Amino acid sequence: MRNLKDIDEGVIFPKGHKIADNHFIGTAWVEALVPMDRTFNCQVANVTFEPGARNNWHKHPSGQILLVTGGIGYYQEEGKPARMIQEGDVIKIHPYVKHWHGASPNCWLVHIAVITNPQKGDAVWLEPVEDEEYNNLK
Amino acid sequence: MRNLKDIDEGVIFPKGHKIADNHFIGTAWVEALVPMDRTFNCQVANVTFEPGARNNWHKHPSGQILLVTGGIGYYQEEGKPARMIQEGDVIKIHPYVKHWHGASPNCWLVHIAVITNPQKGDAVWLEPVEDEEYNNLK
Repeated sequence: MRNLKDIDEGVIFPKGHKIADNHFIGTAWVEALVPMDRTFNCQVANVTFEPGARNNWHKHPSGQILLVTGGIGYYQEEGKPARMIQEGDVIKIHPYVKHWHGASPNCWLVHIAVITNPQKGDAVWLEPVEDEEYNNLK
Repeated sequence: MRNLKDIDEGVIFPKGHKIADNHFIGTAWVEALVPMDRTFNCQVANVTFEPGARNNWHKHPSGQILLVTGGIGYYQEEGKPARMIQEGDVIKIHPYVKHWHGASPNCWLVHIAVITNPQKGDAVWLEPVEDEEYNNLK
């Protein structure tokens, strides 16, 4: 595995700009690799989470694929335990499955996110993953 | 950039199995990360080329996105000069554009390939990139 100390400088693809919305706890960055496009019908972004950062629970009408390129984090679907994810993991998120993802408390996480069928609509953002829940993950 | 000597052991995602068809010169490996699927409508594979390996000229009815995760290689579209590609490059290949990709003569190449709209049909394979053409690339 890549030296974890280096992850905050980016893993392969650019780190991009800080995400400035209220759907995250902690700081995360995003770089659009392939913008929304009617030809490819497929949106690709590189997302980097600092330790402790995670997005709120949300759903994609479209489905999403995560390709983890570095670090250690969590992925959780509603009604299931959180699973630890790391470099080399591939996560397929079916349309309308409520979920969240983010870094672990002590390590960065970097993943490519592929939004498939983006014409089906934007993510639906829900409640945050509160500290009490996040800090008790195993 | 990652130590190039390490690339033959894979970059992040599994190297998979040797490609056993006649659409390549030299040896390449493929691992299906997301198989063809009607839900996601998006096929993802990890492709690794040994130095000198390249695919034949071909076209995708569907369009393809390449996300280069390691090494140094070439991408060329018909009627244009070959361009050198490396870690961090993102290549958008429009439907029916005749092209090829592969490693450089002295270095491995690893990329993720995203086939968008795969329901539009399989790749159309054409003539090889002969040694005379490949060895004169700059």
